Amino acid sequence: MAVASTVPLTSREDLSLAYTPGVAQVCEAIAADPALTRELTWVGHTVAVVTDGSAVLGLGNIGPRAAMPVMEGKAVLFKQFGGVDAVPVCLDTQDTEQIIAVVKALAPSFGGINLEDIAAPRCFEIERRLDAELPIPVFHDDQHGTAIVVLAALRNAARLLGRDLGDLRVVVSGAGAAGIAVTKMLIAGGVDAGRVIVCDSKGTLYAERPDFAPGSEKAGLAAITNAGRVANGIEAALVGADVLIGVSGGQIAESAVAAMAPNSMIFALANPTPEVPPAIAGKYAAVVATGRSDFPNQINNVLAFPGIFRGALDAGAQRITEAMKLAAADAIAGIVAGDLRADQIVPSPLDPRVAPAVAAAVIAAT
Amino acid sequence: MAVASTVPLTSREDLSLAYTPGVAQVCEAIAADPALTRELTWVGHTVAVVTDGSAVLGLGNIGPRAAMPVMEGKAVLFKQFGGVDAVPVCLDTQDTEQIIAVVKALAPSFGGINLEDIAAPRCFEIERRLDAELPIPVFHDDQHGTAIVVLAALRNAARLLGRDLGDLRVVVSGAGAAGIAVTKMLIAGGVDAGRVIVCDSKGTLYAERPDFAPGSEKAGLAAITNAGRVANGIEAALVGADVLIGVSGGQIAESAVAAMAPNSMIFALANPTPEVPPAIAGKYAAVVATGRSDFPNQINNVLAFPGIFRGALDAGAQRITEAMKLAAADAIAGIVAGDLRADQIVPSPLDPRVAPAVAAAVIAAT
Repeated sequence: MAVASTVPLTSREDLSLAYTPGVAQVCEAIAADPALTRELTWVGHTVAVVTDGSAVLGLGNIGPRAAMPVMEGKAVLFKQFGGVDAVPVCLDTQDTEQIIAVVKALAPSFGGINLEDIAAPRCFEIERRLDAELPIPVFHDDQHGTAIVVLAALRNAARLLGRDLGDLRVVVSGAGAAGIAVTKMLIAGGVDAGRVIVCDSKGTLYAERPDFAPGSEKAGLAAITNAGRVANGIEAALVGADVLIGVSGGQIAESAVAAMAPNSMIFALANPTPEVPPAIAGKYAAVVATGRSDFPNQINNVLAFPGIFRGALDAGAQRITEAMKLAAADAIAGIVAGDLRADQIVPSPLDPRVAPAVAAAVIAAT
Repeated sequence: MAVASTVPLTSREDLSLAYTPGVAQVCEAIAADPALTRELTWVGHTVAVVTDGSAVLGLGNIGPRAAMPVMEGKAVLFKQFGGVDAVPVCLDTQDTEQIIAVVKALAPSFGGINLEDIAAPRCFEIERRLDAELPIPVFHDDQHGTAIVVLAALRNAARLLGRDLGDLRVVVSGAGAAGIAVTKMLIAGGVDAGRVIVCDSKGTLYAERPDFAPGSEKAGLAAITNAGRVANGIEAALVGADVLIGVSGGQIAESAVAAMAPNSMIFALANPTPEVPPAIAGKYAAVVATGRSDFPNQINNVLAFPGIFRGALDAGAQRITEAMKLAAADAIAGIVAGDLRADQIVPSPLDPRVAPAVAAAVIAAT
């Protein structure tokens, strides 16, 4: 990745415009009206991609230096698909309060903040606080990017199979950042909360489970999901389920998958190893999706984040609302809605129509 | 300014290399050997241009948002002349400890830190601490960039006039970040400390002046300069002086300039209004330089910082030493040493030979 000048710089006149003394006039204009920053500098089309390196891909807590390749790759995708200039910011701290303080201090330099690969539950508090305390959009991609694309995929899979979202029995395997956000987004999108069962490494979440911290995200979800109070492991949850969404990285036994309802949908999103091998999933499910590029129906955040930020920046939005996320999911689903197939419930991550459609939907929902 | 991808991204293969799953291998390689960050990411050719917006050009404390145009312009110059990818970082804090903490947290993301337009005396402590506590080069351009170019200019002016640096009587008008750094650099470069008189807004600095904070930069300079204990204002200091270096922004009366020694040198560097108008300076001095692009002999930091960081990054230097700065000054002076004229004591800021020569000198001095 590189930085590029968007103005020529070959004469003394160019130099005196881009730098002293010409630049002083631009500074004075912004000092008089800070809103001009968006127009007169690159801030209006720039996003910081911020991580602490604590939950990088499936690699875990590998630290800020080893996280840089992911952030740099992400920045390249931001540019390629959304025309958004993104700067990787890998922080040498994993302290919640310090991360919040650092990002707040950085905020004047950017038009938005994309949080990335920060471990749960720290990521929830960091996003909540920054969202509340900063006047620019803050978006934790591992939560909401994933959730938006999963909702888009589920909308189209249900459409293809003639099912209603509100009738589906959904099992979410994984209660980290992605699992919690996916669950909330599905409920916001029309799935019946009571028919959702979320599982973590200890088994299903249910209201009476004694090991949640009060006020935690898990406790909040447990209170509204799993109306049937299914306890025990994911095997019990999957009996008769219509949808399995894997965002855990753990493996799920074939016998458990075999117990799902007919015409089921399996989104096994762990990368690089899906929770259920696609060949096994295909034996039982009508629609199979993964996070991998070498199988059909790749659920990839790149379908969401470039267009989300392009839209939010162009709209001058101060935050990314639930309505904007739902609009983005609809826009992604809409791209292939006219040509649905079991192996095409989401657009290709390389489809150039996606980001502009998402951006337009986000702007309309702002 | 914009971010640009340096790799193609048009196929699924490109996508899986730049992002998941291919990027995981790069992350793992860096996790095993963090030194690979320089080679495998953009960190090795990237610099953060960091400000708190407290001393922007001659505009003063206009804050981080209004400072952005200067940082963005600077980043463009870094790229154009040094091939260095620079990212503007405007901080929403002017607290010394918080600035230090934020920059330390950011450090894994960058190969070097260029501090910019941070007010004195805060800038000294920030640079000293970051230089000591970070394993990457830290450089406060307003101090050292200016000082390096002034030393280069003075070397060539003295050469042109057949004068020895050690014999010159030098008056530095201004005891902020630039004035203090210029004074130290000139002394390191061969000027006799006792023959230098530094002036601030209250008059000349001398050892017995009662208003310095103990341990302050001003107290340190007062102790070694002004051997003749000239008190009172700059008028007294300029009587018989060979060199006037203005880095204050204040105006200096013609009558004071008229009292300088014959064949004097005046560098009036305040921007946009030099301390002495060039037409007035030319009446008395043999060599006149300013900070402006529309007069001859523009003393511009762009002659220094792109090559300094290019050299430091390429050398894998952990800091910018005095030897590297002196080598940079010599390299800048050397570019025009074979063709010295009163209106050409420094190269043009647009001269493409400068940054490579400075980089090579810095690498050799590392």
